Amino acid sequence: MAGSILGTIFRVSTWGESHGSAVGAVIDGCPAGIPLNEEDIQIYLDRRKPGKSRFTTARNEADRVKILSGVFEGMTEGSPISLIVENTDQRSKDYGDIAELYRPGHADYTFDKKYGFRDYRGGGRSSGRETIGRVAAGAVAAKLLAGLDVKIDAYAKSIGPYTVPDDAVDIRYSRENPLCLADRETYEKASEYVSSLIEEKDSAGGVVECRISGFPAGIGEPVFDKLDAELAKAMLSIGAAKGFEIGDGFEVSKARGSENNDPFIARNGAIDKASNHAGGTLGGMSDGSPVIFRVAFKPTPSIARTQHTVRRNGEPAEINISGRHDPLVVPRAVVVVETMAALTAADLMLRNLSSQYTHIKDFYMNK
Amino acid sequence: MAGSILGTIFRVSTWGESHGSAVGAVIDGCPAGIPLNEEDIQIYLDRRKPGKSRFTTARNEADRVKILSGVFEGMTEGSPISLIVENTDQRSKDYGDIAELYRPGHADYTFDKKYGFRDYRGGGRSSGRETIGRVAAGAVAAKLLAGLDVKIDAYAKSIGPYTVPDDAVDIRYSRENPLCLADRETYEKASEYVSSLIEEKDSAGGVVECRISGFPAGIGEPVFDKLDAELAKAMLSIGAAKGFEIGDGFEVSKARGSENNDPFIARNGAIDKASNHAGGTLGGMSDGSPVIFRVAFKPTPSIARTQHTVRRNGEPAEINISGRHDPLVVPRAVVVVETMAALTAADLMLRNLSSQYTHIKDFYMNK
Amino acid sequence: MAGSILGTIFRVSTWGESHGSAVGAVIDGCPAGIPLNEEDIQIYLDRRKPGKSRFTTARNEADRVKILSGVFEGMTEGSPISLIVENTDQRSKDYGDIAELYRPGHADYTFDKKYGFRDYRGGGRSSGRETIGRVAAGAVAAKLLAGLDVKIDAYAKSIGPYTVPDDAVDIRYSRENPLCLADRETYEKASEYVSSLIEEKDSAGGVVECRISGFPAGIGEPVFDKLDAELAKAMLSIGAAKGFEIGDGFEVSKARGSENNDPFIARNGAIDKASNHAGGTLGGMSDGSPVIFRVAFKPTPSIARTQHTVRRNGEPAEINISGRHDPLVVPRAVVVVETMAALTAADLMLRNLSSQYTHIKDFYMNK
Amino acid sequence: MAGSILGTIFRVSTWGESHGSAVGAVIDGCPAGIPLNEEDIQIYLDRRKPGKSRFTTARNEADRVKILSGVFEGMTEGSPISLIVENTDQRSKDYGDIAELYRPGHADYTFDKKYGFRDYRGGGRSSGRETIGRVAAGAVAAKLLAGLDVKIDAYAKSIGPYTVPDDAVDIRYSRENPLCLADRETYEKASEYVSSLIEEKDSAGGVVECRISGFPAGIGEPVFDKLDAELAKAMLSIGAAKGFEIGDGFEVSKARGSENNDPFIARNGAIDKASNHAGGTLGGMSDGSPVIFRVAFKPTPSIARTQHTVRRNGEPAEINISGRHDPLVVPRAVVVVETMAALTAADLMLRNLSSQYTHIKDFYMNK
Repeated sequence: MAGSILGTIFRVSTWGESHGSAVGAVIDGCPAGIPLNEEDIQIYLDRRKPGKSRFTTARNEADRVKILSGVFEGMTEGSPISLIVENTDQRSKDYGDIAELYRPGHADYTFDKKYGFRDYRGGGRSSGRETIGRVAAGAVAAKLLAGLDVKIDAYAKSIGPYTVPDDAVDIRYSRENPLCLADRETYEKASEYVSSLIEEKDSAGGVVECRISGFPAGIGEPVFDKLDAELAKAMLSIGAAKGFEIGDGFEVSKARGSENNDPFIARNGAIDKASNHAGGTLGGMSDGSPVIFRVAFKPTPSIARTQHTVRRNGEPAEINISGRHDPLVVPRAVVVVETMAALTAADLMLRNLSSQYTHIKDFYMNK
Repeated sequence: MAGSILGTIFRVSTWGESHGSAVGAVIDGCPAGIPLNEEDIQIYLDRRKPGKSRFTTARNEADRVKILSGVFEGMTEGSPISLIVENTDQRSKDYGDIAELYRPGHADYTFDKKYGFRDYRGGGRSSGRETIGRVAAGAVAAKLLAGLDVKIDAYAKSIGPYTVPDDAVDIRYSRENPLCLADRETYEKASEYVSSLIEEKDSAGGVVECRISGFPAGIGEPVFDKLDAELAKAMLSIGAAKGFEIGDGFEVSKARGSENNDPFIARNGAIDKASNHAGGTLGGMSDGSPVIFRVAFKPTPSIARTQHTVRRNGEPAEINISGRHDPLVVPRAVVVVETMAALTAADLMLRNLSSQYTHIKDFYMNK
Repeated sequence: MAGSILGTIFRVSTWGESHGSAVGAVIDGCPAGIPLNEEDIQIYLDRRKPGKSRFTTARNEADRVKILSGVFEGMTEGSPISLIVENTDQRSKDYGDIAELYRPGHADYTFDKKYGFRDYRGGGRSSGRETIGRVAAGAVAAKLLAGLDVKIDAYAKSIGPYTVPDDAVDIRYSRENPLCLADRETYEKASEYVSSLIEEKDSAGGVVECRISGFPAGIGEPVFDKLDAELAKAMLSIGAAKGFEIGDGFEVSKARGSENNDPFIARNGAIDKASNHAGGTLGGMSDGSPVIFRVAFKPTPSIARTQHTVRRNGEPAEINISGRHDPLVVPRAVVVVETMAALTAADLMLRNLSSQYTHIKDFYMNK
Repeated sequence: MAGSILGTIFRVSTWGESHGSAVGAVIDGCPAGIPLNEEDIQIYLDRRKPGKSRFTTARNEADRVKILSGVFEGMTEGSPISLIVENTDQRSKDYGDIAELYRPGHADYTFDKKYGFRDYRGGGRSSGRETIGRVAAGAVAAKLLAGLDVKIDAYAKSIGPYTVPDDAVDIRYSRENPLCLADRETYEKASEYVSSLIEEKDSAGGVVECRISGFPAGIGEPVFDKLDAELAKAMLSIGAAKGFEIGDGFEVSKARGSENNDPFIARNGAIDKASNHAGGTLGGMSDGSPVIFRVAFKPTPSIARTQHTVRRNGEPAEINISGRHDPLVVPRAVVVVETMAALTAADLMLRNLSSQYTHIKDFYMNK
């Protein structure tokens, strides 16, 4: 599992299993001098916390973050920032009976194939609790970005068949409803839909949309480490994500060049684009327009219905997943998308500092 | 542009501008002992060559690869493999007049913002010729994979509004038609569509689909370097790509868990899945089923129509792009998708060698 | 301080300041299936513990390690291993008066120049406590190596002017005396020497020697990531290290080729070398002979004598460092050298798994 | 041989075997806007060229560099810089007879063990020609540094038993004598010494010293990527290097803290050090004093005397190395040390750009 480190300069190393004693993250490469306290991070963790509505599990996860290093007198000091969240409500007994069964849609089988055995307690490293490390570290990246006037907002764009129209997106509303949908009307329909799925012991998918605003032009490193490429990796690394698109996304396949090209214009003395089909990126670098992308999430694989599967030895079996599980991952995925975008944006902004020799000379010769 | 290196063990460094003297790639970390000659690579380069039909440009690009290092007596020797393709047909005069204009849908503006100036000759590093390095290196990865019985095939799944039905995919046919579409009927409709766009001085988008077969289970490194995450990055790093999805992709957002979960079954004494909505990945690791993903490509931004834009100084202007340009990138993107998938798969297979201590002990204690 | 991650496959991220709440390390990329418990690590931490003799400080550091993740049922599970050691005896008041002074030989000044301010409490990140993360992670690497019959032993080779003769090295004895010197006679002289320096409020330097035995031939990655190069980096990254040499080291500059070349011979049916001037490496790869290298350590910069220095504002000042400090770092550096060597050796052994295609085919086709 | 890439931001990938068609390097991450032409690089390559005196081989290596990409209108453009030098004088027949023999002191045996076979033509990748890629890339780094007023000078400090006294170092003179010794008197003695070794068909070792001047304080990334640690790695990665030391180096082991600590003083209104035992580094970061380090090189292992060795099958054999070989590597290693230092210093200066949030805000908010 040599894949728990992300980033080139702002590098995050996450750790922790669902039923170990804690989960956490270490950030290496955070600049010195950013004001930071635990509350800055807690705000983000609270947004991914379950137990807030009938659409999320009844677990009581306190999820209080502690900063163990890297902050001195309220400022990041340039050294690694170690963040920890204890696992307080583990109840391993709920899971013991599935040590020998492969849950459909889960990573049980692939973990066994890769490592020879697996931590069956609540999914181990493949549990949704793994995202706590991402969110905590991403909150630090968001703080870095905020001081540069870069703002990132994610929200549910669709749940099941119900989609928020582009012109109805209301980010503030998305923070107020348990499904994080960015429109009241869509929320009401989706809410009924999810309720009916709960009754049917089934689960729902959805799409999370994310906007980065205030992002300067020129961020992203051609050719492999493009802004869109790094965002795509960050998003597909989230547990249940199955697709990523930026700007018009898959719709571009049906468009014509004359429609899809965004004309450049002069606006208020600056260069701008008349439209934003591109979603804020050209040639893998930000173009100064808002960066807009979407991530598709599959329905929660843990459902209370009886499912067919096999045992580790290949014998057919039936499985009933009795634990506490969300009927959909989307509401909790919103803040994960947002913080993964923050990690990606922060790292690329730091990488961009060495693009122009003129700036490097300014830095070293005039400072 | 500190982003031209890809991979962790099998690492590729590509280089070259459209109108420099050559383009190329260096592979660091290729194992010793793989039979390799220039023809193995040339086959792939020929598939991306233009000039084969009315749907690709009239440029005469010879694009002959030379292996400059890393191969001895017909075998890779473990040292870096340097691959070079000379630029023979550059005609820089075609492009000189656009040094001051920003082409819509191109990276001219973002290059200027990032680096302070740009190589305006044919797009410089953002030209489609940049993909030659990817394809050449990816051909080596494909050779490595072939010896492990892993096969990768990409083809056009849709062009404009015309989509190949899932049950009609014919990979062999895709290699025989100039649009690389995997179905004759779809090809005939799309062919007319593209012809009409050419007449209208416009361009088309499309979707490329890719299948990795024979891929063992357990490949991919949770949590950030998942198979799907690395594929997503590799695909979105391709010039005109705007979306990536794996398995059912964006459709999962509308599915229910009970439909989307793939039940495990025993088949011929081995564990298999009854369906493959997941597209061959669970928890970010391959699950032994074929890996299937799609990439959306935008219409070629270079169109012969007059377009509105601005000059570098912000003044409004009109632009007519007169060079030789493909009416769609999809046919040439097919082999780029395929080779980028090969690079990703090969690197992750090498990374996976250190997953289990048992195997490491076998390697060192019994060899 | 984007430099707290080491390794390519077996990657260690360390964190923690002297006077924060804890120090620790996260290992990403440790293979699954290695038996591991806290005691395996504690043994190494105990060797670096102060408070054992008159040659180490009187601080009472418990330094108990906890494994927070990555181990399940007594085995590494392939996921990140998070290790933590709480800081229990911090006494920050001892250090408060030097917030404005630059201690000679310390990193106070350079931290201020790099980050704009510094954590003055006990040296912050530049404290010797930073090595706890290295030692804890290195203990895991040592466990991995032990199962492959690779053994690493470090010991003090010299202290001040007193050097253990090559033919007198007794590793067992080095574990029994407080200076970790590998010879009783040398110990007795050095012991007096150090005692007299303590009286004079001064400090001593020394040389640590390290042997890797049982190391298979072929480990190390030419051309930049050679075994000797990676060892040199690992060693010079230790706080007070000022030099590294392998085999005959600096002596080779005076030798002739005819003396320095180690002739190959056949011994017991295997290829061996008649001598080992090279110190077990040829062309940056291990050659099957013991790897032998040395690291020079400067005298502890914290001395109780009055020293001249300046304040942050440049004003001349005098400084008296009153805290508890070792009169020499060597005895505690021994286990740091040993574990840093283990981290380096383990990572390069994992990287070597992909050297030969034949082995990769064996792995994937026959498993 | 997955080890031919060096650096984090300014990343160099070198390639090429002694008897392949060419050798070269690709630089990824060089900032845009540095004036650069082939002559800037050729000056450095000419310094490592053999055939200039009786102390270097009679081969006639033209070694003309070509820039294939990354430079536009005389300026680096931010994209990868591909550098190539053709191998024109290969004479492989000189080497054919040693395909089955292991040359003492060479990497033949270890290559066979690592890769299963080797490129026996002139040492393949382990040949001294491999350093051409380093020198070419390092010349670009030196150009970057020159614009920041950072200057790097290496010279021979000792050859065999003859050492240049510290107070006699004359860098200009070192550029004028074939042994690159920094003092005439030492040169005259060493010259006789080397001549007598040539007669005896033997070879000599030596020490190269290097000074970085004008280096700002605060460069280097604690804790693993310290300035000294990265320099040590860079130096030990050079073929025949066996030791590295910085400042007083191994001598510190015999010094007392009260002697070895460099007192801080105020000089011309700035903070400086009264002495420089540390060699310009404190806590792994540059301290503003000149950085001074030394590298020990072993005698050329290729000697014309008959030596004992074994065949690949283990049979005892005698070997006479008849090719053209330098009697010492030091004169040609001087420019390799200098350019490797330049690569290390340039990369760390770019990494340092993200140390302070204040500067990042300046960059993004005021630009």
